[in-house]
Amino acid sequence: MSLILLITNYIGIIAFSISGSMKAIEKKMDLLGVITLGFSTSLAGGILADLLLGITPPTNLIYIPYPTASFIASIVTFAFYKKFTHVSKPLIYADALGLGAFTASGASLAFSLRPDPLLVIMVGTITAVGGGVLRDILANEIPLVLTKEFYASASIIGSTIYYGLAELGVQTGFLTTLVLLLTFALRLLAIRMKWKLPNAS
Amino acid sequence: MSLILLITNYIGIIAFSISGSMKAIEKKMDLLGVITLGFSTSLAGGILADLLLGITPPTNLIYIPYPTASFIASIVTFAFYKKFTHVSKPLIYADALGLGAFTASGASLAFSLRPDPLLVIMVGTITAVGGGVLRDILANEIPLVLTKEFYASASIIGSTIYYGLAELGVQTGFLTTLVLLLTFALRLLAIRMKWKLPNAS
Amino acid sequence: MSLILLITNYIGIIAFSISGSMKAIEKKMDLLGVITLGFSTSLAGGILADLLLGITPPTNLIYIPYPTASFIASIVTFAFYKKFTHVSKPLIYADALGLGAFTASGASLAFSLRPDPLLVIMVGTITAVGGGVLRDILANEIPLVLTKEFYASASIIGSTIYYGLAELGVQTGFLTTLVLLLTFALRLLAIRMKWKLPNAS
Repeated sequence: MSLILLITNYIGIIAFSISGSMKAIEKKMDLLGVITLGFSTSLAGGILADLLLGITPPTNLIYIPYPTASFIASIVTFAFYKKFTHVSKPLIYADALGLGAFTASGASLAFSLRPDPLLVIMVGTITAVGGGVLRDILANEIPLVLTKEFYASASIIGSTIYYGLAELGVQTGFLTTLVLLLTFALRLLAIRMKWKLPNAS
Repeated sequence: MSLILLITNYIGIIAFSISGSMKAIEKKMDLLGVITLGFSTSLAGGILADLLLGITPPTNLIYIPYPTASFIASIVTFAFYKKFTHVSKPLIYADALGLGAFTASGASLAFSLRPDPLLVIMVGTITAVGGGVLRDILANEIPLVLTKEFYASASIIGSTIYYGLAELGVQTGFLTTLVLLLTFALRLLAIRMKWKLPNAS
Repeated sequence: MSLILLITNYIGIIAFSISGSMKAIEKKMDLLGVITLGFSTSLAGGILADLLLGITPPTNLIYIPYPTASFIASIVTFAFYKKFTHVSKPLIYADALGLGAFTASGASLAFSLRPDPLLVIMVGTITAVGGGVLRDILANEIPLVLTKEFYASASIIGSTIYYGLAELGVQTGFLTTLVLLLTFALRLLAIRMKWKLPNAS
């Protein structure tokens, strides 16, 4: 794994864990709920992707550094959560970086195992947004990614580009970084330009 | 796969996708939510069945025609959803056909891999109703099949008959069609006779 | 499997099925909903654990006695549910025994396949509380284990002890019984002492 993917993966895990932990606190869950929602938001997408690809046990349950990062992020959020309401802006950028990193990791893993277009797009997207969907299900809410903003769409576009360029033979390391940055940029643009998908009405 | 199973599978995918998309529109989800709920309702049951059977990656993520049919059905529902509120009656019949086709496909797949009674019944039923359960979870509602009507029950009976007759040596192609039609007929009867399972009260 | 683990497994399946069925009745589900929630609460944790470990089809869909016990417990709950509201105290003890049995079974299975610390702890805990989480998701509620009481925590501690002592070479049969009883005792203590995890506030 390239250094940039490694670093952004950790940034993503931390940002996603904080997002899950904040949601748990908002829903008056206890410390275990806070840790569980942090873990789910940051790592359940990758676990589901692994199951779909037949990778058992899932990497996120064996490779310890990722869950450890999530655990620490959740504990810190629990302890200092009032502070975190003041840092929502940096968190949005960290979250967007994570979206890019998870998309690139997922798409790259799927393509390396089986270069099917739908599989690559689905696994890239599920790796990136599956955890957020589980967070919202556990919090008894409609998943945010289904209702508003241009969020999962950035991941879908990133994964699609990964598949297309990988089919054309672009070198994996370069392509992973490219898709990471493209997805990140798309998400930032979406925030800045307030992009929204249409509603039926 | 027999022609009748193929055709009814597509009818089911389209009917289930419309049902998921309508639910998404009702819940004010955006275009991505509409496509996701259409996809989940029509294809997630089969994906879960594949995971339980150890088939990875799941067929519905690799065999492109099914997701394509779901995608088109969701887009059309999104574009013309006001029209769809006037066609609820034909939709109920299409949905019942899909229930039959998915039950027969699921039970047949499970039996071919491992002729265990509970496995065949669970996989047949999950293939048919698992997507609807996920649709309702994503829409933050109690799954409809758990609260009313004789719906999953038709699928359970169909799957049970599949197992019984397959054990007796009935030929697969004929049996699949038979179970498809029986499940369809049971569901139609249930609608016409307003069958309900009892409540505890 | 030792006799004590076998017996407590059945006690757990029955107690968990009753808990799921009661929730279904409270939510006005029909007979199928009652059976489904009984099944999910008692057996879905083990099914998810099997999927994470790559065991397909999951044991709980093939080994018939467990689902049969759950089925009977749900039917009896459905028929006599008014009586069950008077036996909540014995049920809490049966539930605690089940928590211990499921934790010990899950941790032991995971360790035998792959002695990774996080995997053993996660699989032990998911086997024990995963079904209850699914019960609450299907009932459209925030999972109880995330909000209050010292419940999943007992399972986490039990699984952790399993891993630690198994690594030290303690014999499996003895260790499984020990972890069963320890988790049970922890849960009873938690009830008696009204232990709670902290909330962020």
